[in-house]
Amino acid sequence: MKILIIGASGTIGKAVAENLKDQHELITANYNSGEVQVDLSSIDSIKAMFDQIGSVDAVISAAGLANFGALAEQSDDDYQLALNNKLMGQVNLLRYGRQFINSGGSITLTSGILSRQPFPGSASVSMVNGALESFARAAALELENLRINVVAPAFVKETMELMGMDSGSGISAADTARAYRVAVEGDMNGKTLDVTDHI
Amino acid sequence: MKILIIGASGTIGKAVAENLKDQHELITANYNSGEVQVDLSSIDSIKAMFDQIGSVDAVISAAGLANFGALAEQSDDDYQLALNNKLMGQVNLLRYGRQFINSGGSITLTSGILSRQPFPGSASVSMVNGALESFARAAALELENLRINVVAPAFVKETMELMGMDSGSGISAADTARAYRVAVEGDMNGKTLDVTDHI
Repeated sequence: MKILIIGASGTIGKAVAENLKDQHELITANYNSGEVQVDLSSIDSIKAMFDQIGSVDAVISAAGLANFGALAEQSDDDYQLALNNKLMGQVNLLRYGRQFINSGGSITLTSGILSRQPFPGSASVSMVNGALESFARAAALELENLRINVVAPAFVKETMELMGMDSGSGISAADTARAYRVAVEGDMNGKTLDVTDHI
Repeated sequence: MKILIIGASGTIGKAVAENLKDQHELITANYNSGEVQVDLSSIDSIKAMFDQIGSVDAVISAAGLANFGALAEQSDDDYQLALNNKLMGQVNLLRYGRQFINSGGSITLTSGILSRQPFPGSASVSMVNGALESFARAAALELENLRINVVAPAFVKETMELMGMDSGSGISAADTARAYRVAVEGDMNGKTLDVTDHI
């Protein structure tokens, strides 16, 4: 399959590319590197990316910005970043990219376990994760010959180490990547794939 | 308790007020009627409402706009309406209203069953419903002496009749209102109350 990976330079995106590269043709996209550049917060940038690439068999997004922060301290801008980038950026990949995905193809977005297992400081992140999961569940009902799913990563070991956290409870990026492969190669539609179910 | 009901002129809001009026002191707020006017899409309007009212023991929102429409036809504006009004309007009731809610009080927002049981045409509505439920779950972890919950109504019989739908599977507004009372008078926090569990 010809697969577009958005956020391919990120910790998860790199592992997804590594997992898929032997059996699929990959196109990598990032904010400011990779074969194609895209700014998820811009509909024009998303359209330009698809115009440049043309048709693919699958789109994987392991991208989307949102800030952690205390409920009492997060600003209106923090909420707008989460809504415009992680949420609508990924929703718009489906809305504007669906015509570029070949029949029988799929789009796989990234939410996160915080929609169901939040922690203090995750309110805006949990919010957009829950939004993505419900959006995919609903949108799947209206797609023909195209599947949409969401992968909900847990905490990634490498990211926790970068942040100086105890990574004992984390799941490696390589293990996280497996759920994306299941979403692309499987036949589910409208589902949220818990990374822990696919290790 | 002194309870502010936002969207008090709506089908659900009226039934909630009817349910609560004998045992509580109610303040009604609507977009263009009631004791106080508020535009949920405007942070300034939300602030002005709370400045006008002063402290309350509970806030109930049975308000928030979002349009149904086919995934292929909904516009960017349809998504922005759902995000700015039904989602952030209600999220901002907590963010800007929490300081006006007396210790031990609560805020109850409205999502809807479509987050988990979508139908074709509900993508943007399902999206914001899921967002509200995950937001409440996360925000609850950071609130002291204040509870936040979400009521998820099913289809309301009176609304279905107004829309010319077969209302056989609907739940009356009066029955829907019971879940709001449970949320206000109970001790749950961060929960999504399914209306069907409280009839």
